[in-house]
Amino acid sequence: MERLDAGEVVIGDGGFVFALEKRGYVKAGPWTPEAAAEHPEAVRQLHREFLRAGSNVMQTFTFYASDDKLENRGNKLTFTGQQINEAACDLAREVANEGDALVAGGVSQTPSYLSCKSEDEVKKIFKKQLDVFIKKNVDFLIAEYFEHVEEAEWAVQVLKATGKPVAATLCIGPEGDMHGVTPGECAVRLVKAGADIVGVNCHFDPMTCVKTVSMMKAGVEKAGLKAHYMTQPLAYHTPDCSCQGFIDLPEFPFALEPRILTRWEMQQYAREAYKAGIHYIGGCCGFEPYHIRAVAEELATERGILPEASQKHGMWGSGLEMHTKPWVRARARRDYWEKLKPASGRPLCPSMSSPDGWGVTKGHAELMQQKEATTAEQLRPLFEKADAKH
Amino acid sequence: MERLDAGEVVIGDGGFVFALEKRGYVKAGPWTPEAAAEHPEAVRQLHREFLRAGSNVMQTFTFYASDDKLENRGNKLTFTGQQINEAACDLAREVANEGDALVAGGVSQTPSYLSCKSEDEVKKIFKKQLDVFIKKNVDFLIAEYFEHVEEAEWAVQVLKATGKPVAATLCIGPEGDMHGVTPGECAVRLVKAGADIVGVNCHFDPMTCVKTVSMMKAGVEKAGLKAHYMTQPLAYHTPDCSCQGFIDLPEFPFALEPRILTRWEMQQYAREAYKAGIHYIGGCCGFEPYHIRAVAEELATERGILPEASQKHGMWGSGLEMHTKPWVRARARRDYWEKLKPASGRPLCPSMSSPDGWGVTKGHAELMQQKEATTAEQLRPLFEKADAKH
Amino acid sequence: MERLDAGEVVIGDGGFVFALEKRGYVKAGPWTPEAAAEHPEAVRQLHREFLRAGSNVMQTFTFYASDDKLENRGNKLTFTGQQINEAACDLAREVANEGDALVAGGVSQTPSYLSCKSEDEVKKIFKKQLDVFIKKNVDFLIAEYFEHVEEAEWAVQVLKATGKPVAATLCIGPEGDMHGVTPGECAVRLVKAGADIVGVNCHFDPMTCVKTVSMMKAGVEKAGLKAHYMTQPLAYHTPDCSCQGFIDLPEFPFALEPRILTRWEMQQYAREAYKAGIHYIGGCCGFEPYHIRAVAEELATERGILPEASQKHGMWGSGLEMHTKPWVRARARRDYWEKLKPASGRPLCPSMSSPDGWGVTKGHAELMQQKEATTAEQLRPLFEKADAKH
Amino acid sequence: MERLDAGEVVIGDGGFVFALEKRGYVKAGPWTPEAAAEHPEAVRQLHREFLRAGSNVMQTFTFYASDDKLENRGNKLTFTGQQINEAACDLAREVANEGDALVAGGVSQTPSYLSCKSEDEVKKIFKKQLDVFIKKNVDFLIAEYFEHVEEAEWAVQVLKATGKPVAATLCIGPEGDMHGVTPGECAVRLVKAGADIVGVNCHFDPMTCVKTVSMMKAGVEKAGLKAHYMTQPLAYHTPDCSCQGFIDLPEFPFALEPRILTRWEMQQYAREAYKAGIHYIGGCCGFEPYHIRAVAEELATERGILPEASQKHGMWGSGLEMHTKPWVRARARRDYWEKLKPASGRPLCPSMSSPDGWGVTKGHAELMQQKEATTAEQLRPLFEKADAKH
Repeated sequence: MERLDAGEVVIGDGGFVFALEKRGYVKAGPWTPEAAAEHPEAVRQLHREFLRAGSNVMQTFTFYASDDKLENRGNKLTFTGQQINEAACDLAREVANEGDALVAGGVSQTPSYLSCKSEDEVKKIFKKQLDVFIKKNVDFLIAEYFEHVEEAEWAVQVLKATGKPVAATLCIGPEGDMHGVTPGECAVRLVKAGADIVGVNCHFDPMTCVKTVSMMKAGVEKAGLKAHYMTQPLAYHTPDCSCQGFIDLPEFPFALEPRILTRWEMQQYAREAYKAGIHYIGGCCGFEPYHIRAVAEELATERGILPEASQKHGMWGSGLEMHTKPWVRARARRDYWEKLKPASGRPLCPSMSSPDGWGVTKGHAELMQQKEATTAEQLRPLFEKADAKH
Repeated sequence: MERLDAGEVVIGDGGFVFALEKRGYVKAGPWTPEAAAEHPEAVRQLHREFLRAGSNVMQTFTFYASDDKLENRGNKLTFTGQQINEAACDLAREVANEGDALVAGGVSQTPSYLSCKSEDEVKKIFKKQLDVFIKKNVDFLIAEYFEHVEEAEWAVQVLKATGKPVAATLCIGPEGDMHGVTPGECAVRLVKAGADIVGVNCHFDPMTCVKTVSMMKAGVEKAGLKAHYMTQPLAYHTPDCSCQGFIDLPEFPFALEPRILTRWEMQQYAREAYKAGIHYIGGCCGFEPYHIRAVAEELATERGILPEASQKHGMWGSGLEMHTKPWVRARARRDYWEKLKPASGRPLCPSMSSPDGWGVTKGHAELMQQKEATTAEQLRPLFEKADAKH
Repeated sequence: MERLDAGEVVIGDGGFVFALEKRGYVKAGPWTPEAAAEHPEAVRQLHREFLRAGSNVMQTFTFYASDDKLENRGNKLTFTGQQINEAACDLAREVANEGDALVAGGVSQTPSYLSCKSEDEVKKIFKKQLDVFIKKNVDFLIAEYFEHVEEAEWAVQVLKATGKPVAATLCIGPEGDMHGVTPGECAVRLVKAGADIVGVNCHFDPMTCVKTVSMMKAGVEKAGLKAHYMTQPLAYHTPDCSCQGFIDLPEFPFALEPRILTRWEMQQYAREAYKAGIHYIGGCCGFEPYHIRAVAEELATERGILPEASQKHGMWGSGLEMHTKPWVRARARRDYWEKLKPASGRPLCPSMSSPDGWGVTKGHAELMQQKEATTAEQLRPLFEKADAKH
Repeated sequence: MERLDAGEVVIGDGGFVFALEKRGYVKAGPWTPEAAAEHPEAVRQLHREFLRAGSNVMQTFTFYASDDKLENRGNKLTFTGQQINEAACDLAREVANEGDALVAGGVSQTPSYLSCKSEDEVKKIFKKQLDVFIKKNVDFLIAEYFEHVEEAEWAVQVLKATGKPVAATLCIGPEGDMHGVTPGECAVRLVKAGADIVGVNCHFDPMTCVKTVSMMKAGVEKAGLKAHYMTQPLAYHTPDCSCQGFIDLPEFPFALEPRILTRWEMQQYAREAYKAGIHYIGGCCGFEPYHIRAVAEELATERGILPEASQKHGMWGSGLEMHTKPWVRARARRDYWEKLKPASGRPLCPSMSSPDGWGVTKGHAELMQQKEATTAEQLRPLFEKADAKH
């Protein structure tokens, strides 16, 4: 907070669940973080890579680690929620101490809210995770990945009660939250609930997130309030998303590869975010350590420092200067990489998809009903619809 | 070797230099493996991830670790070549012992050969690395990433003298090596030099590599010889490559993201390789642990085993079965992922590039001369040519 | 008008300037219609093809045939404006009489308005063309291709004074006219000025035009007014257009080929337009006779008639039923063509462009100034800017 | 012939069946030319447009006008084959006399050959059409669109007997004819059969055709023979074709629009053909008059003349010089159009297709059998296969 107050740039970390899924420690679907307890060496290593890449914040690997979510995931876990949350705090602290980083304890949206539990019940869920964070004495708190501003407000209220600084990010785009509350209004409500930092994370690509946070900033300023701003977007291009983000893209979550941003696109993102007055700049699903390093390199002048991992990276491709082929050496310059339009190598594939999801046209209430259609018989028409599409 | 002789499938590992570059431990350009000594925890963790993903072979992280290459890389290293090679052997052995894997010591093409050193001089380079492998008692040896079959023959001869099994892979496509020696002829020469396993690695995408190794197999069989076959391709789609492979693509090495294969495309690769009679199936640049897991899952029936990391992976997307949105649940089936043509999310980008490189039309001799054009003044026309192109 | 009042569908014709440019009779750039006098056989033949394709309206080929525009075009013409306009009327009438079609006299936006001439002066320009239409006794009048609703109002007022029915179409998209007047408000102003039919033509693709006219319809209905609606869009896909339409696309006007709609996409357009309550359905630049036939075939049931040219067309590809190859015969069905996503055959090209035009971000006034920069010296930076882009 | 002997360039015409299909006079599927008798004004107009565009040859519109083909087309015709062939000759001659053009009588492959009729029977078919050409005194003869070199030889032998010059073109690509006879060997056989000009037409894109004719030329020269060379390719990009050409593309024949070449791409084709020593340069399906004009404009210096239709065309976009928008004026130069990579405007579509057709892998004999599978019941699995694909 002091850093942000002083106008400094804070660099967040990248997406743990996606990165660890590819490394073999997180299961796509449940996306739960039991690896913190099961395979601490893998989680520690990823923290360390982000630290080396320039992250100022080690976010505890506690995404979807609320008890109701952990129980919901279907197969029995060896560790309790408490154990997982505690292990995650310890790992974050251990690596933060290896460098100049803070530890942030994170909570995210709960199944309890979606199944219409009361404010009290939902807040209790948050409090349970919070108890661990307090015990482990994290430096500040993040409420992230909320589709409904109301649930995020509840989370902020719970977290704020600790007296620690609170950041709050929604997983929304320019069209607002699932009830159509605009980004500007969402931000105002979060600030009023007590958030010191507001912004978005996940669901949309970097440029869309910068745009959304800019709308939030405009809303907060128009309301005469003050806040810091943050953005932790996807590392995937999502120009074809509807309001519910990349979940509805047909490629989610197992065929997103062609959409991954290059390091040069990340530098562009960092620059645009900075120019928009967003000073807490990190990433979410798809961000690998080299993406965070690109953010840190782009803002090296502003921050007055290059990350440790830049010892293994020539700026703008300068590592190619000694290549034996002259046309590869000719790529060792900024202009080349900035202008390049990278080919997909997939001539049989389109450049955009049509998002799935009847949610685009149907209302939220109807969606809730559809969730009930879980038997094979009920799913058949859905399969047929999907077949017709592809 | 016994496994291959018995008709079993052996799964290789993925590409260390590219994976560790993204994690912040290898510098693109030199691509040297000093991380084995500098940051053993990062190398150990990557070995472990490949082991969990199903790899039967821990290849020592000694790519480009010949003394002439290490000296050539421009900036001084803290560790000697001997230290790096020894550390790499120790790490591979440590992790191999955590599971059921062998250790393979690897050598690759040398700057000495390209600068026209004598057979004797080049062989001395290989011997120096080999001394470490013998001291550390690796299980077998791999000569990989050779563009010229002649240099690969020399390497095989050196390695074979140890009495250990030897595998040899060239980084060539269907058009053959840099002197136009066909894949079939290359394979025959390697087998005659003493290789037990022949194949290709790097430079081309999986399907191209399967095709090239099939040509090798046909050549070996036509010559009345016997061998095992292996393929360790890129994890990038390269339909637009010329004979020198992905190096000449404008996107190499910093904008290859849109070309990354999905896990489903990897399963298809594993199946095609197996059907072609290739039983040593691994990967090279771009392969992450989840790509190797996909190979292991596709061949689970043939191998009679699922890898450990499959505990964190539902086959064919089954992890999505409990998703709250019915249209995401509808993706939890094989048919869906097999047919999907993933979009790039990049409507301003093409699907193919024109390879750089005057080598496509000019001869090899001429290329060698061009390597001399290294001053800024000499490079200017190259820059202009590149500008005109993009 | 009676037909529209009775709820019937009226089918317009296609784009004469683009079709005749490809046939060698119109010059791209000036786009003037002197061919009506110079090469009547070519204009007559195109009218006839649209008639055979199902057009109910023969629009006089008088686009850009106002005296101020004809004089503006640079090179001297053999024929006077009066001669061109009269020849165009005669040709339209001659072919209309070969079938069941009406003749519509058309005026379009003038250079006089853009150079800030007075209402009086601009109206005089329209009156001069109108005198010919009255003399030749056209059946109704169309004011089309206006970027500024004010100029269109003036045109409607002039045309309306004749007592003949008047249609008015703007070349705008959902963002409204060049001063930001919304489609709904534009439509209300045109109806109040006396237009019986309102809509859009040119500049955007069919689906965008249907959307824009729907907004017009909503505006007119909200204002408690009544009108008929028409749309004559481009036959080019323009998802990447900015507010000024296809003029700003880098491909305009000589590389639009990959964007041409198929006949099946035209059927979809006709259906969507009809469902939106638009009953005057035609086309503009890029529409060839077979595109209009597709509109007529899609609405054959509603209109109770198939066009003459359908004698040479099997619905939904049924003409392929007797092909010698079974997989070509398999294409003789609706389902096949409706689902097909046609490939571009251009793997080195993107699927979208960035529109040119500083107008997107700069204001209209500034644009007007830039028009003055016509000397080679002044144009140099523009060339450089364009170079940098491509 | 004198022109070609003197080293002059001869420009052919474009594709009548596709152009007239779009204009509403030819039915896709049968593709027969009864319009010559039914709608002479439409055929005359198209001849005239090609003449104005620079064509030196008016090819009689007698494609598929052999009696066996006309009878085969399913629905009764008002005119006899004799009437159609005679009308076509008269129209070609009438327009040729309006300028400096020759008339060429054309024959093409017959159903009789495909159904295994004898040499004698097939030759009789050709003779019948030839009788009309002799009666109408055409200037020379063309045997075109043959997939089997044997049938083309028979046609050449029949035509050559008249003493008139004979051109012969196959619809093959670099892989040769349907029996695998290479382009070089095909050309040698055609020259030996009496052809003065040899080459290819239809089925493949311009650059592929230039390549194939180059192979023919190499074959003829290697055999110590002499000939002139011609090419009349598609106006569609077909990088994804298999050996049977565009027929097997899923987009054939009703969704080829995105593949249409621009005028600039045609200029490039004309240049490459000329450089390859091909001096008879024309077009086939997809070629519109402006495509032929582009060929004539590219070779204007070599031919010493610009076509009449160039009066309505500014070279390299110069017609845009007076556009009101400076960024459109900036497009008025060669460099701009040569470098432009035109977007498809279709982000949901791929850039390449997989060709249909089991013919690719199965033999010709098998294909013949499949032709028998014409009942709905037999076709069902084909439909399903096609469904699975798209």
